This record gives sequence, structure tokens and C-alpha cells, in this order.
Amino acid sequence: MTAVVRLDRLEELVCEALEEGRLEDVRALLARHHPADVADVIDRLDDDEQARVFVLLAPEQAAHVLSETDLAATRALVRSLDPAATAMLFEQMETDDIVEILGEDIPEAQLEILRALPSAEAQEVKRMLAYPARSAGRLMTEAFVAVRAELTEAEALAALRRASSHVEALSDLFVLDGDGRLTGVVSLRALLGAPPAQRLDVIMTSPLAQVTPETDQEEVARLVSQYDLLAIPVVEEGGRMLGIVTVDDVVDVLVQEGSEDVLRLGAVQEGGTDESYFTTPIWRTISRRVGWLMILFLTGTITVNVLGWFEEALTEVVALSFFIPLLIGTGGNTGAQTVSTMVRSLAVGEIRPHDVWSVVGRELLSGLLLGLMLGVIAFGLALILGNGPDLGLVVGLAVVVICTWANTIGAVVPLLAYRLRLDPALVSAPLITTLVDATGLAIYLLIAQFILGL
Amino acid sequence: MTAVVRLDRLEELVCEALEEGRLEDVRALLARHHPADVADVIDRLDDDEQARVFVLLAPEQAAHVLSETDLAATRALVRSLDPAATAMLFEQMETDDIVEILGEDIPEAQLEILRALPSAEAQEVKRMLAYPARSAGRLMTEAFVAVRAELTEAEALAALRRASSHVEALSDLFVLDGDGRLTGVVSLRALLGAPPAQRLDVIMTSPLAQVTPETDQEEVARLVSQYDLLAIPVVEEGGRMLGIVTVDDVVDVLVQEGSEDVLRLGAVQEGGTDESYFTTPIWRTISRRVGWLMILFLTGTITVNVLGWFEEALTEVVALSFFIPLLIGTGGNTGAQTVSTMVRSLAVGEIRPHDVWSVVGRELLSGLLLGLMLGVIAFGLALILGNGPDLGLVVGLAVVVICTWANTIGAVVPLLAYRLRLDPALVSAPLITTLVDATGLAIYLLIAQFILGL
Repeated sequence: MTAVVRLDRLEELVCEALEEGRLEDVRALLARHHPADVADVIDRLDDDEQARVFVLLAPEQAAHVLSETDLAATRALVRSLDPAATAMLFEQMETDDIVEILGEDIPEAQLEILRALPSAEAQEVKRMLAYPARSAGRLMTEAFVAVRAELTEAEALAALRRASSHVEALSDLFVLDGDGRLTGVVSLRALLGAPPAQRLDVIMTSPLAQVTPETDQEEVARLVSQYDLLAIPVVEEGGRMLGIVTVDDVVDVLVQEGSEDVLRLGAVQEGGTDESYFTTPIWRTISRRVGWLMILFLTGTITVNVLGWFEEALTEVVALSFFIPLLIGTGGNTGAQTVSTMVRSLAVGEIRPHDVWSVVGRELLSGLLLGLMLGVIAFGLALILGNGPDLGLVVGLAVVVICTWANTIGAVVPLLAYRLRLDPALVSAPLITTLVDATGLAIYLLIAQFILGL
Repeated sequence: MTAVVRLDRLEELVCEALEEGRLEDVRALLARHHPADVADVIDRLDDDEQARVFVLLAPEQAAHVLSETDLAATRALVRSLDPAATAMLFEQMETDDIVEILGEDIPEAQLEILRALPSAEAQEVKRMLAYPARSAGRLMTEAFVAVRAELTEAEALAALRRASSHVEALSDLFVLDGDGRLTGVVSLRALLGAPPAQRLDVIMTSPLAQVTPETDQEEVARLVSQYDLLAIPVVEEGGRMLGIVTVDDVVDVLVQEGSEDVLRLGAVQEGGTDESYFTTPIWRTISRRVGWLMILFLTGTITVNVLGWFEEALTEVVALSFFIPLLIGTGGNTGAQTVSTMVRSLAVGEIRPHDVWSVVGRELLSGLLLGLMLGVIAFGLALILGNGPDLGLVVGLAVVVICTWANTIGAVVPLLAYRLRLDPALVSAPLITTLVDATGLAIYLLIAQFILGL
């Protein structure tokens, strides 16, 4: 137990020591590891064990660990501490982490924490909490390197040295005028490449990109990724610079948004990103899923009615019902593929508002082509299964029409969500599948009535 | 046309000027914009227009634009240039970008490009191409700041100044011994915070994380995100440091892997990340989808057989078939939710190999609970639709069993893929839906036979 060990091994050792009540061993073990690793171990413990382990940490390590644990674990830990102790930890944390922990509503206990914080820090936290959730204002830090254009390279480097212990990013110096307005940026690269007597106004450039505190975090991530930035300035209307969002926060945003797209595509309500798989109580997992399942189930009951309308046809030719799951399944699969393609293309910005009609046209065409390929196979299959050319024709034709239809719906619905400024990933594959089920059935049975003369 | 304009406006202006043959205007317009924006405009042009616009760029801008265009566009542009011209552009590009462009196999024309490159750069490119695709070796750059432990802060700062123009990351100085082995890291923050006479061996720390050139890019991204790194050292077996992977490459990896998860979940074959929605020829889009659709279609034909086995029951009670789409739809939706949850939890590392059985148990339980809720509704619904309590019981019970089954399958199959070291996202929602369709039907109709005594 003397060396730094791998994460899963660390977890085992901690659990063993906890079970055997060797708390000193746990303390010694965790003291040697990075806060991010300690946080991962804590995330996977039960609620009461979390608090038991957390108090073993030295104050400074504890503050860092608290910045790294899952939001649910963090909040539980904060609730287990008294406000004064929390405030002491918060003093050593970055403001954006504090803002994330305090979250939307500040109940009484949290107001006490804010009162216990040094007033400058408390003010900054309050300012940031005033910005919308998932905005640049929530992610930013006010601890950036601000310099005046008249400084020389040597003076700026001295300023950078003084700032180095408390700013979050050393990669860029932001040139502000007397009113705090952003007038230019000097990259560390440009600074170090310049002679000591060079004035900053000679080497500064316009910022490649900037955001307002209200800018959505996805747009912040897109800009940082587009221009390979390490920090992006946050500037309020009027030009005054408020802070920066650093690339490590953008990395977190990308991981979070990626998780969310995957969950939403599967019709699981968002929110799961705050909590890890094992620490989320099962009733909460279920409550995140049951809403969509109910909506889809109730929408799905339309299929019972649709089939009821065609009862006669189904009684007359029982074999018609044999192909129902295959046909609506194929429609659902086609639609799911299109939704995924849409969600991805919209997320990376390849499809823009004025492209909507050309996208729909393209998806209609590819649905038709895919449908024709599968339709030929379906026709052959129906014949092989001994259903005669008429039923074969019905099934084959239905595949063509259903694929075309599903592909179009799979494109139109996410695009519609996008135009209505909803997250396109809210349009889940299950939603499209359910929509295609009822309509696909009607298409199939209408074709059957027409061709078989039922 | 004098100012810098927004991206979609830029696109419009370029297209207008191109149509009217005003090439000088296009040149002037693009010269004012960031290479990343110019690349976005080029990505959306037709193949021949891309080349027509690209030759308008000044050589230095052209090199940067070529680092930013979509891989498919980049490769087409490279093919349109002669090897000597390409080599001139490559000289101004970062090695990891060149490696990405050259890709897997180096055809004759590309060998010529390598021969036209300065030999040091050509050697570096060849070394990197020897590493597996999607590995740290492909992403890394050899241009990092290497220092000796005996240097003082002032000497190190001077070294950093000299290196500033050609290294990719200034955030960390890597301390190497005489054999090039990594012995420590001095962050820029630590360097600037230290007095000029301080020796580096006093302020250096062990690297928080390091990778080998063979490490998969997802693991690289996970470590950079876990420890909030700006650059991670790549160290070969034996300890010699080869290069660094910088956070901007990790941001690209995260965007790419996120896209891939979304596409795979929808059963669309990967590969689409290299190309943008509009520039991908429609036959290629179709070829990426038709494989999975065929496999799923052929698997889906099992449902035709399953229903065939129960022909008698379906003839006797036609109303049984009315509930088929609703039941298998609900099973598919439940399974899709579970797959999304699994893909997400596995991607962020919340589920690890030894958790498999507890995950399966948990999903079985939540499937059962979800099934019970929906089952009650299904029972009521069947009664309302006038199907009598027996059929209601059949439908309600089938919902319970199918939900439990679908939820379990939706967990087991991605976990199996994970244990077999396949990407869990290869297990798409459509695959689970299709598996649940056939088995769900059998469950439903067996319950019907038993309860209704058919």
C-alpha cells in the first residue's frame, strides 16, 4: 500500500479497508492519489460511505475532490457538512465548480454557505448564478490575465508571473481598454516570440471568437473546437469583458452533450449525466424512462385501432398478419437510421436552416432506393414462403412505400424540432418507430385491400 | 465586401461571386477569414468548385485550410495538386494533420509527396504512419518542449522562448534525462511562479498521466478529460518520450467519437465522420445503411415463421393480432432505452468488467417494474377496447414479460460486445428491436395459448 495504483485496484483496496474498518489505511491510500481518481472512487460508494471517506481527506485535497465528484455525490456531501465547513472548501475551489454545485435554486442552507464565503467570491458566484443554465456565464471564470495595450513584452510577462498562481489559463493575455472593453488578444506564443521591449499593441490580434454570457454551452464548444482555442473570452453587450471559458470545461461539455444525445436518441429523459449508473436509485432511473414509454405506449395503441379497421381483410387472409412485424420493423429500422444521421449532422452543424428542403428531398430519394432493394427481397421471400405472387406483390410494394415514408418522417421530424429550436435529439428513434408503426400498418393494409381486392 | 462576415453569409457571398465568375472577389473575401471558416465554406462546395476556390488561396492560408477541411474534401484537393505543390503545403502543416490526410495506405502519388518533403518531416510522417489507426501515435506531435532537470527557471524560460514558434503546446515543459526518458513535468504555471534561479528538478512533478503510441484515442481523451490536461506525453516502452497529444486533438476526438456513437446506435455504418452530409454521394450514404438494414430484415423474417407456427390461434382469435404491433413496439422501445443507457455508461467508464452481473440484475428488475406499470394500463386498455378479461390478461401479462425480457436483452447484448472488446455502440437500437420482435411474439402467443386454452 505504498505506491500509486491503478484506478480499479484503488477502488478494491479502499473498499477492503473500509469493510475492515481500517480508516487510517484509507486515508493514507487516498492521500497519494489525484483528486480526480479519489472522486471516481467516492462516486461509486454508497451515500453514507461517501461521507465517511470524504472526512478522511485533507482540506485542500477535499476541495479538489469535491470539484470532481458526480454532481449528485457532491451535493450529498455538501448536505452532510455544515455551511461553515463547506464555505472553507469552496474558498479553495474554482467559481464555476461552486456555481455548478449550488445549481438552480439556492435553498436556505446554501445562502448560509454564501454568507460564510469571502464577499468577493460570494458576489462572483451570485453574478454567475444569474445567467441561464448551460450558458457561457455558468462556465466562465473571472480569473483571466487582463493587460493594457501600452505594456511592453517584459512588463506583460511580469504581470503573467504575478497572475500565474490564481488565473485559470495562461495561454492568452486579454488586452482591455480603460473601460474594461476587450480590444485584443496576445497569445502566449506571440508574447514569448517577441523582444522584451515590444509593446503589446503591436503584437496583439483581434480575438478569433467571443461569446456573451448568455451563449449556449454547445455554441461555446463549437467555437472552441472550430478555432482550436484554449480559452474563449466572454464579453457582455457593450464590449466589457467578463471572463473566459477554458478548454477543460469545453471537454466536459462535449462529454456531457455526447451522453445526452445518446440517451435522448434512446428516449431516456436527460438528467442522467449528473449521476453515475450505480449511484442513481433505481426508482429515479425508472422515472426517467417511464414518461416516454407511456407516451409511446399510448401512441402505439393507435395500431390496435388501425388493425381493427382492417379486421375483415385480416380474417379473410390470415397470412397478411404474418408480415406485420417484419414490415413495421423494417420501417422502424429505416427511420432510426435517418434520425441518427439527422441528429449527428445537425449537432456538427452540417445542416443549416436553409437546407431543410434539400435534406428532405435527399432522404426521400434514399428511402425509395433502400425500399426498392429490400422490396425485391421481400417479394422473393413471400414467394419462397409459399404465399403466391399476389401477396408477394403486396409485401414487396409495402416495403418500398414504408421505407420511403419512414425515411422521410425520420428526416422531417428532427428538422421540425430544429426549426422550433428544440434539441433534435429529443426526437428519439423509439418516437419515429412508433409513428411509423401505425402509419406503416395503414399503408400495408390499404395496399393489400387494393391489390387483393378485399 | 470589406468586413469579416458571419459564416453562413460568407458562404452565400462566395457562391454568388463564384456563379458570376468574380474570382478576384472570392480571393479577397476568403483572404480575410480564418482558415477554419474558409474550410467550412469549401467543404460545402462541389468537387470541381472546391479545387477552383482552393487555388485562389495564398500558400500559407492554403496550408491551414487544408488542415481544417473534411477528410474527403482534403484528399480530393490533394489529388488535384501535383506532388511538389502538395509537399510545399505539407511543409507548413502539422505532422498529425499530414498523417491523417495520407491515411492508411500510401499509393505511389503519395510516396512522391513524401519524397518531396524535407527528409526530417518525411521521416516523422513515416514513423507516425507505422502506429495503428486511432492511436495516440497518429495524433501526437514530436514538437514539444523538452528540457533537462539541471536547468534553472530563467534558462528554461529562455528555452521556452526559443521553442515558442514551433512547438504545439507551451503549457508544459517535459523533463527528459540523457536517454530521452521522461522523468518529470514542469507546468508553465509552476515555472512562472518560481524564482529565476530555481532549478527545475525542485519544481518538477511526476506526469499525472501518460500513454504509449499504441493507446487508443478514446483512452487518450478519457485521461486528458479526467486530469484536465492541455497536453499528454506519449512515451514508448522503455520510457523514452516520443511526443505529446494536445487538447485540441482530444476535442476533435470527442466530437468524432460522439458522432460515431450516435450513428452506430441508429445502425448506420461508421465512416460518415470523414464526410459531411451534403458532399457524401447518395450511393455512399445508402451503402453505409443497406448492410445493417438487410441483416435486420433477414433476421426479422423469423417473425413471419413465428406467426406461422401460431396460425391456428390467430385464425381462432383474430383480435390477438391487433395487439402485435403494440406489444413488440413496446418491447423495442424498452430495449432501445436500455441500449442507450448502456452505451452511455460504458462510454464514460461507469460500468467496468466486474460489474456485468449487477448491471444485468438491475436492468432485469427495472424492466420488471416498468413492465408492471405498463401491463396494468395494457390490461385496462384491452378491456376498454371490448376484448374481455381473458384477452386483457394475456396482453397485460405479455407486456410485463416482454418489458422484462427486452430490458435484459438490451443490457446483456452491449455488455457482451464490451466483454468481447467490440464497441458497445455497435449494438444498435434496431438490432435489439429486431431481436425483441421475434422473441416477444413467441412470448405473447405462448401466453395466449396457455391462458385462452388455444
